[in-house]
Amino acid sequence: MERIWTTALGGHVGERVRLAGWLHRLRRLSNVTFLVLRDGQGLAQIILDEPEMSARVGALNAESVLEVEGVVVAEPQAPGGVEVRQPQIEVIMAASAPPPFDLFRPTLKAQLPTILDHAAVALRHPRQRALFRLTSTSLSGFRASLRERNFVEIQTPKIVASATEGGANVFTIDYFGRPAYLAQSPQFYKQTMVGVFERVFEVGPVFRAEPHDTPRHLNEYVSLDVEFGFIEDHRTVMALLGDVLRGMLTAVAAEVDALTVLRLRLPEVPREIPSIHFRAAQELILEQTGEDIRQEPDLAPVHERFLGEWAQRTYGSEFLFVVGYPMVKRPFYTHPDPHQPAYSNSFDLLFRGLELVTGGQRLHRYEEYLAALAARGIDPEPFNGYLEAFKYGMPPHGGFAIGLERWIARLAEAANVRETTLFPRDQQRLTP
Amino acid sequence: MERIWTTALGGHVGERVRLAGWLHRLRRLSNVTFLVLRDGQGLAQIILDEPEMSARVGALNAESVLEVEGVVVAEPQAPGGVEVRQPQIEVIMAASAPPPFDLFRPTLKAQLPTILDHAAVALRHPRQRALFRLTSTSLSGFRASLRERNFVEIQTPKIVASATEGGANVFTIDYFGRPAYLAQSPQFYKQTMVGVFERVFEVGPVFRAEPHDTPRHLNEYVSLDVEFGFIEDHRTVMALLGDVLRGMLTAVAAEVDALTVLRLRLPEVPREIPSIHFRAAQELILEQTGEDIRQEPDLAPVHERFLGEWAQRTYGSEFLFVVGYPMVKRPFYTHPDPHQPAYSNSFDLLFRGLELVTGGQRLHRYEEYLAALAARGIDPEPFNGYLEAFKYGMPPHGGFAIGLERWIARLAEAANVRETTLFPRDQQRLTP
Repeated sequence: MERIWTTALGGHVGERVRLAGWLHRLRRLSNVTFLVLRDGQGLAQIILDEPEMSARVGALNAESVLEVEGVVVAEPQAPGGVEVRQPQIEVIMAASAPPPFDLFRPTLKAQLPTILDHAAVALRHPRQRALFRLTSTSLSGFRASLRERNFVEIQTPKIVASATEGGANVFTIDYFGRPAYLAQSPQFYKQTMVGVFERVFEVGPVFRAEPHDTPRHLNEYVSLDVEFGFIEDHRTVMALLGDVLRGMLTAVAAEVDALTVLRLRLPEVPREIPSIHFRAAQELILEQTGEDIRQEPDLAPVHERFLGEWAQRTYGSEFLFVVGYPMVKRPFYTHPDPHQPAYSNSFDLLFRGLELVTGGQRLHRYEEYLAALAARGIDPEPFNGYLEAFKYGMPPHGGFAIGLERWIARLAEAANVRETTLFPRDQQRLTP
Repeated sequence: MERIWTTALGGHVGERVRLAGWLHRLRRLSNVTFLVLRDGQGLAQIILDEPEMSARVGALNAESVLEVEGVVVAEPQAPGGVEVRQPQIEVIMAASAPPPFDLFRPTLKAQLPTILDHAAVALRHPRQRALFRLTSTSLSGFRASLRERNFVEIQTPKIVASATEGGANVFTIDYFGRPAYLAQSPQFYKQTMVGVFERVFEVGPVFRAEPHDTPRHLNEYVSLDVEFGFIEDHRTVMALLGDVLRGMLTAVAAEVDALTVLRLRLPEVPREIPSIHFRAAQELILEQTGEDIRQEPDLAPVHERFLGEWAQRTYGSEFLFVVGYPMVKRPFYTHPDPHQPAYSNSFDLLFRGLELVTGGQRLHRYEEYLAALAARGIDPEPFNGYLEAFKYGMPPHGGFAIGLERWIARLAEAANVRETTLFPRDQQRLTP
């Protein structure tokens, strides 16, 4: 007999079916035992009414792996409206010990470090795994939106000869006896590939040796990178980002089971996402909070939260672009605003008050690159392979990078980005 | 006027259109100049018949970026049956120098190291970029086949605390003052995630510090990893692999332009891919070549090539499974063949005589893991986070890993896997 998913039971009422999965929960009452079986898709309630079988299954630890054959019966009281009766149960593998936490409770009763230490079990909790189902589906929506627009997926090296942004905070590798580095972003490669395909994207790990210990930083995370040519300026990039986010949310909206488990309300991406210039944001903060940050070249998290609330109040939008960050805080390849060259054609996208995306227009003329590197006192030699792309003809181009774990964290309003990372890496944590 | 792709010209005969792209080729005859414009999708022929314009464009280096407006005319002599006449041409960016090779020739006239050194330009050649379009589309087909079968995409860490297979050949990182390693495969994580979703896949970089210098090895490559539970044995895994390869080839078959440029003949995946047991393969090699390798625990490349040719002759198949490799050569998590425990429930898939995929059934009982590690003298402590998955209930499971660059190399019959890697990494090469 072909095994079916627990989520398909409703279509088999009156039939004998075969299920397989994990012993999620067992409730032994005086004359009946309720077994909840969890498979890769969902949960099923199974009724054990033979004392011998209840005793045999009752002796198993939770998370033991079972095969169950039984008859599907409509039962309005049961979760999902169906249950399985007259079961035959085969133990595929008995768990060796009781799990460190009860997976059947609505949430895991443990502190985050304990949950992360026991990821192999904790991730089996329906809430946790729902988060990562949304991650998977977000990726699918991201790629579908881009492929539809003729973007080509690329894979670029993570071991590099020099630090991407010419700065600090890179991890060093021993590469056959010489130093190499872990890529902080695929920036140089995705720009190079604009010369080949015009429109490219990459999903891959990036590595930041930042000594941050905050709920929003990881030392390794997944970056959704996009870059494309023949743009007008950064606003062309912002428009594409809006389309891509809508594509991701459309995909996520189809994950009804996961959204129900998480009780999530998905945001709407306004047809035109509101935006505010960096300088105007500083003025607004002065005016509304009394704090004068007009000499600062960047926004602090508290200011991003303020702006997020302001956008919600003013525009009813959970998304807000901040555009025109000062050139001094942006990397050397950033395109200046032609009308006020101290400011850049770049943006951050705040989602629910947190920076989710960074992007903008890049320089595209070879001479501008040489000048930008010289102005920052950076030796151009290590960048030769990258600079060649500009020497031999590049159109105006730009792009953006979305942090995958942050996206899901903000979507699910998780307090810590580690909750939306399968196996997070930070200064303290290298395992599991 | 909205810009259109060169590949869409055929639908606009008689209309005035706008194109944008790179100056791919210029041929100045006595009274007319042929300009070939290359954009992200294809090529277009443009007729310049004003001497002033011919001179102006003739002064540009190849690869300069142009915008062209003109009228589309059916012209059976032109490539694609259309050309653009009465053009207006705007130079978006003049290339600073002539490119290091002519991109309009049928193939790049340079040695592989030179081609790789100048990747930013070389990848713009229609043949080179066709290879990477097939790469992108293969990924799309891979993921679509798996999502259709309820597989969930995962992203697992590349920085790890211990060497994946307990062995050598790992790159060491300085992780905030302590040693860490680059993951050789997502093996432990994908198995762990079988406990969560039953069916998972990952596309990501893997790192091997192997001091190989061959046309088929890279020190960083992209691995297409699959793992799933509730299997019968390795044959369930082999059947899924066949389905996934068919899905990848179906996707690739739709890339008509790229296949035409490359003049590729796609292989067929037989409904049942032929397979031979490792021991039978050794006997066959003895019988047909006189070489006795029956004491060897593995096959050399020359034997794989022989077997590939044999499968082609015998079964008309370009794919061949070799099953049952000796346990001594397989990693500790390998499931033995219950009927002959010195051999394993594992396989390699040869494609056109080269190992393309490795896979098999894994151990799933906690006690078996402890015994397997002890038998190899490996301390289980660093593997605790992984072993927890088995302690708390795991079904019989297995999976496989496809090397992305090798897949495209064999598909395109490229002599060197570096030809199908955008920016390859080997002992000598860390740039571009």
